[in-house]
Amino acid sequence: MVATPEKTKSGQTFKVVGTSPIRHDGYDKVVGRALYGGDVRLPGMIWGEVLRSPHAHARIKKIDTSEALKMPGVLGAITHADLPAAEAKDIDIGEGVVNFRRASMNILADKKVLYKGHMVAAVAAVDRNTALEAVKKIRVEYEPLPVVRNVDDALAKNAPILLDDLVGDDLGTPVKKTNVARHFRHEFGDPDGAMKKASLVVDRTFSLEMVHQGYIELHNATAVWEQGGRITIWSSTQGAFGVRAQTAGILRVPESQIKVNPVEIGGGFGGKTVIYLPPIAAILSKKTGRPVKMVMDRKSVFEGTGPAPGGKVRVRMGVDDKGKIVAATADIKFEAGAFPGSAVGAGGICIFAPYNVANTRIDGYDVLVNKPKSAAYRAPGSPQVAFATESVVDEICNARGYDKVEFRLKNASHEGTRRADGPIFGRVGLIETLEAARNSAHWKSPLKKIGPDGKLRGRGIATGFWMNGGGKSTCDLAVNGDGTVFMNEGSADIGGTRASIAMQAAEALGIAAHDVRPSIPDTDSIGFTGVTGGSRTTYATGLAAYNAAMKLIDALKGRAAQIWDRKETDIEFKDGVFCSKSDPALKLTFKQLAGKLDGTGGPVTSTASVELAAAGNSFAVGICDLEVDPETGKTDVIRYTAIQDVGRAVHPAFVEGQMQGGAVQGIGWALNEEYFMTENGVMANSSFLDYRMPTSLDLPMIDTILVEVPTPLHPYGVRGVAEVPLAPPLGAIPNALYDALGVRFTVQPIRPGRILEALAAKPGSSNGARSNGRRPS
Amino acid sequence: MVATPEKTKSGQTFKVVGTSPIRHDGYDKVVGRALYGGDVRLPGMIWGEVLRSPHAHARIKKIDTSEALKMPGVLGAITHADLPAAEAKDIDIGEGVVNFRRASMNILADKKVLYKGHMVAAVAAVDRNTALEAVKKIRVEYEPLPVVRNVDDALAKNAPILLDDLVGDDLGTPVKKTNVARHFRHEFGDPDGAMKKASLVVDRTFSLEMVHQGYIELHNATAVWEQGGRITIWSSTQGAFGVRAQTAGILRVPESQIKVNPVEIGGGFGGKTVIYLPPIAAILSKKTGRPVKMVMDRKSVFEGTGPAPGGKVRVRMGVDDKGKIVAATADIKFEAGAFPGSAVGAGGICIFAPYNVANTRIDGYDVLVNKPKSAAYRAPGSPQVAFATESVVDEICNARGYDKVEFRLKNASHEGTRRADGPIFGRVGLIETLEAARNSAHWKSPLKKIGPDGKLRGRGIATGFWMNGGGKSTCDLAVNGDGTVFMNEGSADIGGTRASIAMQAAEALGIAAHDVRPSIPDTDSIGFTGVTGGSRTTYATGLAAYNAAMKLIDALKGRAAQIWDRKETDIEFKDGVFCSKSDPALKLTFKQLAGKLDGTGGPVTSTASVELAAAGNSFAVGICDLEVDPETGKTDVIRYTAIQDVGRAVHPAFVEGQMQGGAVQGIGWALNEEYFMTENGVMANSSFLDYRMPTSLDLPMIDTILVEVPTPLHPYGVRGVAEVPLAPPLGAIPNALYDALGVRFTVQPIRPGRILEALAAKPGSSNGARSNGRRPS
Repeated sequence: MVATPEKTKSGQTFKVVGTSPIRHDGYDKVVGRALYGGDVRLPGMIWGEVLRSPHAHARIKKIDTSEALKMPGVLGAITHADLPAAEAKDIDIGEGVVNFRRASMNILADKKVLYKGHMVAAVAAVDRNTALEAVKKIRVEYEPLPVVRNVDDALAKNAPILLDDLVGDDLGTPVKKTNVARHFRHEFGDPDGAMKKASLVVDRTFSLEMVHQGYIELHNATAVWEQGGRITIWSSTQGAFGVRAQTAGILRVPESQIKVNPVEIGGGFGGKTVIYLPPIAAILSKKTGRPVKMVMDRKSVFEGTGPAPGGKVRVRMGVDDKGKIVAATADIKFEAGAFPGSAVGAGGICIFAPYNVANTRIDGYDVLVNKPKSAAYRAPGSPQVAFATESVVDEICNARGYDKVEFRLKNASHEGTRRADGPIFGRVGLIETLEAARNSAHWKSPLKKIGPDGKLRGRGIATGFWMNGGGKSTCDLAVNGDGTVFMNEGSADIGGTRASIAMQAAEALGIAAHDVRPSIPDTDSIGFTGVTGGSRTTYATGLAAYNAAMKLIDALKGRAAQIWDRKETDIEFKDGVFCSKSDPALKLTFKQLAGKLDGTGGPVTSTASVELAAAGNSFAVGICDLEVDPETGKTDVIRYTAIQDVGRAVHPAFVEGQMQGGAVQGIGWALNEEYFMTENGVMANSSFLDYRMPTSLDLPMIDTILVEVPTPLHPYGVRGVAEVPLAPPLGAIPNALYDALGVRFTVQPIRPGRILEALAAKPGSSNGARSNGRRPS
Repeated sequence: MVATPEKTKSGQTFKVVGTSPIRHDGYDKVVGRALYGGDVRLPGMIWGEVLRSPHAHARIKKIDTSEALKMPGVLGAITHADLPAAEAKDIDIGEGVVNFRRASMNILADKKVLYKGHMVAAVAAVDRNTALEAVKKIRVEYEPLPVVRNVDDALAKNAPILLDDLVGDDLGTPVKKTNVARHFRHEFGDPDGAMKKASLVVDRTFSLEMVHQGYIELHNATAVWEQGGRITIWSSTQGAFGVRAQTAGILRVPESQIKVNPVEIGGGFGGKTVIYLPPIAAILSKKTGRPVKMVMDRKSVFEGTGPAPGGKVRVRMGVDDKGKIVAATADIKFEAGAFPGSAVGAGGICIFAPYNVANTRIDGYDVLVNKPKSAAYRAPGSPQVAFATESVVDEICNARGYDKVEFRLKNASHEGTRRADGPIFGRVGLIETLEAARNSAHWKSPLKKIGPDGKLRGRGIATGFWMNGGGKSTCDLAVNGDGTVFMNEGSADIGGTRASIAMQAAEALGIAAHDVRPSIPDTDSIGFTGVTGGSRTTYATGLAAYNAAMKLIDALKGRAAQIWDRKETDIEFKDGVFCSKSDPALKLTFKQLAGKLDGTGGPVTSTASVELAAAGNSFAVGICDLEVDPETGKTDVIRYTAIQDVGRAVHPAFVEGQMQGGAVQGIGWALNEEYFMTENGVMANSSFLDYRMPTSLDLPMIDTILVEVPTPLHPYGVRGVAEVPLAPPLGAIPNALYDALGVRFTVQPIRPGRILEALAAKPGSSNGARSNGRRPS
């Protein structure tokens, strides 16, 4: 359902934008022809495998690969010593920052292992089984060290220090021997003074565990280090140029020496923005003179790639008697994992973004723990802080009896208000989104608090925020004689961006979506384009496509002018037709003109690049009905509506899919998913059987309401849409659980055991006895 | 040696153009990593093979593939009936014209086979051996027809007619039931009248056999017909867009439905401009649902692909007493092969091009014979006519005692004179080239007429002409942060054009040749670009690269202006440095500026296409010393100097290589190579053992003199260089043989048997007895 609020209608009419054609890459993917990283085969190709640390924290005393190298079929082995000394230089990879030196230490451990699963050594062998056997023959002597399991451990006095050479940044002051890589603050107004004057203050601390993106496709890389020094890489990634930049930085070769072939990607959600295998495969290729292929197994993906950070979030909010939030403060402590760089920065942006509060302070802490280095996960940092903020807002509403939509509307951010981290909002659609929620069938429908089978029901609502990305993108267009247009763009297609970008070019050119044929060439063959992440791609690469289309139209006007012997200024392009202003009889459709380019200068091509600092921000609202089985503690979401300001739904079916997918991931995060760690820092549930993600059988159809508040930053008003829907469930579910059970949950995931414990702890609960002696499941 | 005549010096100085760096694709090719068509492997790939006709001319009564289809492992079989009815439409593929209907009949014979080796049916099977066995099980009933072996047969009264539906064009008059597809005429002045007034007329008819380009790599194609209707093709070709256009026309699908991946090509010389296997592989893929690969064997390449036409060329030339050529007429009858379209049109352009003659008539005939359809071969049509014209000119000089260089200089074409087929020459360098020949060490050196071992020696000289191609090309550029530039272009690289195009971009951008990194993407990923042929690529695609570089510089000036807060008009680019006119302290090299693009608008890319009607024409001169063993008739070239107006030698080492390669092919053509056909129209020497091409052991080092007369059509004066050097040997060798033996040879190849016969026929020859009863070898 697309709801376009009367007041936000732009008056634009579209022929292609807003339709939902079959995606250009649909056939390839449905029939199994699409080439993924796992499909890459090269002549002479051999296999690489890595040895991973069994310890969460240990000093490496010695690595001996000699026995492995003696095995028949083993062609090479490497350790950190085989990597060049990488620079301590940060690069922004679009959804996070990568430091080459830390990345180099993550890719092959240097002196210490910092998490269970940390890569220690790698071998290359004629086949995968030989490589796997060879890895077992590598001998490593470790000196185990005490494990920093979470932010409390990390911040404790005399805590074990993960990185001896780390200089932390505490509000600008350098700090040595610390596990806090960074402490930042956004402060405005007089939060402490205002808080004192508030008539109600709610102060809660929320605790979260790491969760994984859970993409189906395993990390992979195939690399060839040519004798001429060129390195060619195939890897399933969200950004081929990011693979290029990171590999170049880690291997200390110029970026232009590396070509990355963007194979298809089977899910990423932020986790395939950073690299793990490409530099290892490349170095093994250099050592062996052969193409080297590597594919992780699932356990390695869980233990060795980047999950979303867990941590602790404390939120205090003060309201006055009129229901206005007068002060809000937060402490956000995120688990960076073994190396600096959690999503705490983004968490600090998102935490109070939906609320227009005059007095705020946000403290963010990037905290090292002996877990894998965290990575981006769909709206990185936002779901965690939504858990905190939206729970506190719910508690305020419950305490005061406020309507939960009206309270949010009253305090809502809108164009011209100030975001707690500084910027002034442009045209945003939170109010329209909340109004759509208020008007929704879901919100208006009554909910029986007890289900027919005695299950306890509740309804919750929450908002979410994501700023969306801009960044750099390139798009090239070339006209074919049959009126089709080949489009080349540099953005990996995770969720349908071939279609959503091609549609924008088609709209501009006045032709059908399928007459624009998108390709994603290698990094040698398209201008720089940032990662597909941050919900930037349909917006930024789409804008590059629009700009390239405008250039194409200009060039084609020149051709029409030649054909008609008119001045170029006499030619206009309207509704897909080139025509002469002075002679209305002279008309050519785009397709007709495309067939007449020979003799007027030949092929018509265009190229456009964008570098966008700003993007239209996104707000979302989730309404969740759930029921809890008081006997087992199992929670089932029985109805969920995702409402979102999508700016302009270029391909509404894909936008709905993004909203549904985001909601489902948020539901799993809230209720079931977590890195369940032993005391020794070992992940106990590193398989899809034990890491409990929701399946289609666990969930109802997710309803969607698309609110279109076009951003003026884009000619069609396109905003990013893919990330923000993940945030609201983290608030809506605990709020619904409170509604169902009268219990405020502050620990994620709210798994059945915790629910049973909470019910047992309630005064007069009949469940009390049942949880005794039982470990939460 | 680069000779730049004083009067043609352009005053331009270059940093990159004129140097000979290692080619960008050198490593890949030397170490065997470059991917050729034969290297393509796809998941699920199967093999196709074709059945070829054993008859040179026969009606097909029945084709039965049922036994083949019953074989285990055979997945499909096709005949002409499986092809759609193709349009009778001509397209210009750059070096010749392809008619879709005739191409469709050539690709799978329809009703009749027209030459031995004509493809009749094809099968696809799980492996190549199975496919080869299956082909043998196809039963074809033929009704043999009389064979048209040569142009005399074809033009004879009551000749068998090859194509019943052909309507010939005799100077504009349609003719039915003919083997002459086209007769054209170029006539100017009063050739008959002027000939009568001439004081000397030489009139000779020359006879030639078909010869093959002799590329090492076999024709190949791999095709996938996707369920969505897209067709993807890998094929070693001189032009990926030509493969696309021809396959689309034959299969009647829109060009935009086809993607051609340009793999590397192991030689083409014109023969890989037309296609044979791609449509067959595509239809087999459609039938079987599998990727289908096909590779010819050598016999099929000789028998079934396109050689250069043989035929007959009559030249009459009249000179006055002052040594001025006053009239020239020609009849050129070229063997088109089984379908219309020989190089006779180009032969008609080239035949008198080196000579400025006021009264000329040229008649050209495109004649069908029962031999494979001829194709382009390096300066198509020019070597054959050079044989005739240069022999006649030599005879005139001998008859009158004229110096052979001075006579040519006196009659030479130059800027402003008229070519016999019509156009007025622009700036051309024939005079400078002849002067360089006159001044050469070779021409000045004496030659002993008898070698130390009694061999007979002679020296010959001849000119050659090729107009060079223009056409359509696209080039895209993208700047990397490290100051390198990725260049994408659509031209297949046969002879070093990655380098020669990249060098022009590098020159324009003020960076090193190796800082421009060329790629040749698939046809979806670059604007239309014509075939690599006609000696057009370094000129036309190079000009596209130059234009793209100019656009890049414009864009970069804008960035410099932003960085320095200046107006764009204040920025100039000189000697590789961007600087402010108003503040000389503000300077950035290209590389420095490339590193500062972030924050000024992001990536900088450009694209440019050209469509060039004209090109700078090329003249060449060859000087040949040879010696003949009177006992065996074997001829050895002992010294050869190729002199050529190269316009501007972008990469002199490659230009020399082209001149040397062309000379060698011309020497082989003149002395040894031919399609040796039996009475039944069967090629008797269809292997590299029997088809005698010169090897490095047969030849001396070919000396080169590069004459640089820049064409004003190109900013660097670039002309095509690759084709014209093939023409002079066809004249220089018979002229040298006349000098050695006193015998005028008018039949090509001038093989040992013919020399022995001629020596025997000479009055008083001691060789007379030896040739009796011996068949010429």
